[in-house]
Amino acid sequence: MAKGLNRVYLIGSVTQTPELRYTPGGLAVLEVTVAGNDQIVDEAGTPRELAWYHRVKMFGRYAELFADQLAAGTPVFVEGRLDYRSWEAEGGRRSALDVRVDRIEPLNPEGKGADLTVTDARGQERLRAGLNQVTLIGNLTRDPELRYTPQGTAVTRMGLAVNERFSTRAGEQEKTHFVEVQAWRDLAEWAASLKKGDGVLVIGRLVNDSWTTQTGERRFITRVEAQRLERLTRGPGGGGTGSQ
Amino acid sequence: MAKGLNRVYLIGSVTQTPELRYTPGGLAVLEVTVAGNDQIVDEAGTPRELAWYHRVKMFGRYAELFADQLAAGTPVFVEGRLDYRSWEAEGGRRSALDVRVDRIEPLNPEGKGADLTVTDARGQERLRAGLNQVTLIGNLTRDPELRYTPQGTAVTRMGLAVNERFSTRAGEQEKTHFVEVQAWRDLAEWAASLKKGDGVLVIGRLVNDSWTTQTGERRFITRVEAQRLERLTRGPGGGGTGSQ
Repeated sequence: MAKGLNRVYLIGSVTQTPELRYTPGGLAVLEVTVAGNDQIVDEAGTPRELAWYHRVKMFGRYAELFADQLAAGTPVFVEGRLDYRSWEAEGGRRSALDVRVDRIEPLNPEGKGADLTVTDARGQERLRAGLNQVTLIGNLTRDPELRYTPQGTAVTRMGLAVNERFSTRAGEQEKTHFVEVQAWRDLAEWAASLKKGDGVLVIGRLVNDSWTTQTGERRFITRVEAQRLERLTRGPGGGGTGSQ
Repeated sequence: MAKGLNRVYLIGSVTQTPELRYTPGGLAVLEVTVAGNDQIVDEAGTPRELAWYHRVKMFGRYAELFADQLAAGTPVFVEGRLDYRSWEAEGGRRSALDVRVDRIEPLNPEGKGADLTVTDARGQERLRAGLNQVTLIGNLTRDPELRYTPQGTAVTRMGLAVNERFSTRAGEQEKTHFVEVQAWRDLAEWAASLKKGDGVLVIGRLVNDSWTTQTGERRFITRVEAQRLERLTRGPGGGGTGSQ
């Protein structure tokens, strides 16, 4: 198992003044949605703006410290990591992927002009020049699946297991974060050569997708849209360089 | 003093098979030059390739571990931080800025095509699709200086002090890394509003410049070329919002 790397950088604005809450065990939790636009250049060379909204979480003393500093509209820089949770629900197992904050810094963008943000349909501010970057090292949990959209665009989906080691009073602990990764076009075609178990470096953007189930429920998934993929190691299922 | 942030990510290829050496105190040191091309889009919207060569250093057990794994041409991913050194030399104080490696991972880019690298004039391999990214938080050591090139392009130079805290057997230690930062065009104009002491976030690329002194000596400087600059806090010299 490749030693995990799990780093998220976001620059965006806080959509709503957050409310500090406490778990039944007394742990302070502060949840904030950070929103921005990514400026990307698509394959045709056309610049596009893509909006994003990501939920970030702080715990303990850090949550208490920032409860009064983060109002609706505050632009912030976030350094954190993807945090995977799963639980039993009616109709089967469910999971979510949030950003756990290691560091948050309010920005003080005086003199940068009044058009720093866009106001969305819900009246929330979104930072025009956002930053949304994820760097991960993990192992593929399954062989990648290459598909084509009706327009003929290649898209490959992969599951990545990113392990994390940390020390608690109870000793050394290990946790695995499961992250869905998606690649498009040339990168999708190349990704199809990867195999379950391969150690992989992913650099990309964090995106949210939603869809409606057959029973009419709205579901959300947080994924990483890969901009760069590199193979670090061959997994046991890789078959090596043999000529079978 | 803003709590420092100092993170470097590089993807490039190793230019020469490195030689492990030991300091007089017995510490293993492995120095490697990593080379790649940045694909940037300049202000006129023209894509350009810029070559870079950066010296990265490993110490101790980590240096010994990688001494046999990094040959000339090996593509690698590096996670590290900028490391500032200064010393007395003939003609005054000299300094250097290197990358200290926290993690290095050889890449295994099978199936990505044979034109992965460019061979330079010295016969060394340079990775075509490099990654070169620096994220820093520190305080400005002087007021930024805005100048214009003979072509009328705005350029601002700043000094950034990035502090680092670490624990040794002797207790909690603190070190300051001095980093020269440069911004161009619109970003340069905005940067001129920053003041000595301001807490600043810098996201950019690591670049090397060289020039010849009046006495004919060749000098090198490693700088960060800012792609993004944000003010976090106002320094004591900022003057606030008063109307003086």
